[in-house]
Amino acid sequence: MRLARVRVHHDGTEHYAAVVAAPTGPGGPDGIEYVLLERNPFDGSAEPLRQPDGPRIPARSVTLLSPVPDSAKAVGIGRNYAGTVDGPGDSPLFLKPSTSLLAHGEPIVQPAFSDEIGFEAELAVVIGRTCSRVPHGSAQEYVLGYTCANDVTARDAQRSDGQWTRAKGFDTSCPIGPWIVTGIDVADLGITARRNGVVVQHGRTSQMLLEIAGLIERVSAAMTLNPGDVLLTGTPVGAGGLSVGDEIEVEIESVGRLANRVVAIR
Amino acid sequence: MRLARVRVHHDGTEHYAAVVAAPTGPGGPDGIEYVLLERNPFDGSAEPLRQPDGPRIPARSVTLLSPVPDSAKAVGIGRNYAGTVDGPGDSPLFLKPSTSLLAHGEPIVQPAFSDEIGFEAELAVVIGRTCSRVPHGSAQEYVLGYTCANDVTARDAQRSDGQWTRAKGFDTSCPIGPWIVTGIDVADLGITARRNGVVVQHGRTSQMLLEIAGLIERVSAAMTLNPGDVLLTGTPVGAGGLSVGDEIEVEIESVGRLANRVVAIR
Repeated sequence: MRLARVRVHHDGTEHYAAVVAAPTGPGGPDGIEYVLLERNPFDGSAEPLRQPDGPRIPARSVTLLSPVPDSAKAVGIGRNYAGTVDGPGDSPLFLKPSTSLLAHGEPIVQPAFSDEIGFEAELAVVIGRTCSRVPHGSAQEYVLGYTCANDVTARDAQRSDGQWTRAKGFDTSCPIGPWIVTGIDVADLGITARRNGVVVQHGRTSQMLLEIAGLIERVSAAMTLNPGDVLLTGTPVGAGGLSVGDEIEVEIESVGRLANRVVAIR
Repeated sequence: MRLARVRVHHDGTEHYAAVVAAPTGPGGPDGIEYVLLERNPFDGSAEPLRQPDGPRIPARSVTLLSPVPDSAKAVGIGRNYAGTVDGPGDSPLFLKPSTSLLAHGEPIVQPAFSDEIGFEAELAVVIGRTCSRVPHGSAQEYVLGYTCANDVTARDAQRSDGQWTRAKGFDTSCPIGPWIVTGIDVADLGITARRNGVVVQHGRTSQMLLEIAGLIERVSAAMTLNPGDVLLTGTPVGAGGLSVGDEIEVEIESVGRLANRVVAIR
């Protein structure tokens, strides 16, 4: 199932919804409709989500929001793909606060403190149930699904600050979406970034060093993960720079395509 | 005013409350009562809080919670006191997630990945209204009040990981409280840590390098601060270690006393 969070235009209310193929229409990325879910997928219940069966809402009648709750935190891992590791040492964990989350289609705002922001295309794991100290073998039980993420990073601040808080935590630095896909095998999916339509990064999730169950084990050994929290699994070789005006897309096979444009701060 | 968040024993409900002196009784730290607030102090309103005048609830009838909403993030600054700076360079910012927050009286749980945790006594600023890119001169408008914090840190993970995410972000690593004090001048307050009743750290807030308005300006230049978010202002010289069984107290003049005991992970 594909799960989105949407704001319905006619009354401004926010809902979780299943994404369904439009029965007619162009069939492209916009050939979709939404059916509102009967329950909040982040209510912590172990009960499986059912494909809802209510009225269909056309894509033009809603705005996509980031697919996780507003309070969700994101935890990332650096240097987690073959070829991105400079030297010995564990891949570092870092935090992106809830205030950094951004939906598909919203603008990435280059912050005033940086002249050099860049993209990192990543598979994101969305947590479905509260967990801590999760053993490797049980990790999958806590996964709701997967989405695309862009770990936007201010390279100059990353170099100068030591800690990556500003560099990876600024407002709009965590585009995720467009939706969460459940029930898929993510062991070997293609990840592609396109800048202004040109492929600039490509890798496969099979090149991850610490795989998803290991990442959940490692992060949850330190901190409780709540429903909606996001784990960013690292970026393949080829992350690059972004300029004001660029459109950056992250596309992951079987998951979706996340696109955002870079704007200057006003 | 002193603002607390409490769970009322008889029905388990959670409320914000004003802390008032008990009219009779020992007059010591427990000689207090609570009066429930008429509105949530984190509702984002610019309207000043009024001292409520409802029924008084004895301290024994409630459990203190951390004084900020469960979704609050904390942003800290390293090396921000005279004498704690090793070399040149800006004081680094770091994040402690909402899942690290702990109330007065709750146990600090030493995580399995660390053999060496330590305390850092700090003045904490509590944000009252949503803000971003706050100019220095307007910073005070967004402050609700102040509380005590202990920036508990896993020293071994801090040395080994590079990023401080595990070291400063683990569950229970951010005791704050016991309550928020509004309307006080914090420019020169004594900060004291006591381990098992013995003074182990002492400094004054006047020794801060980047002062509070500057910290709000710097953090909010990168990320939006929401009502309840906490800024940790750094620790004076003398931060030290903690062992299982220790009781660690952070006391700040005119603010309060925050006490927590260290327990082993089970």
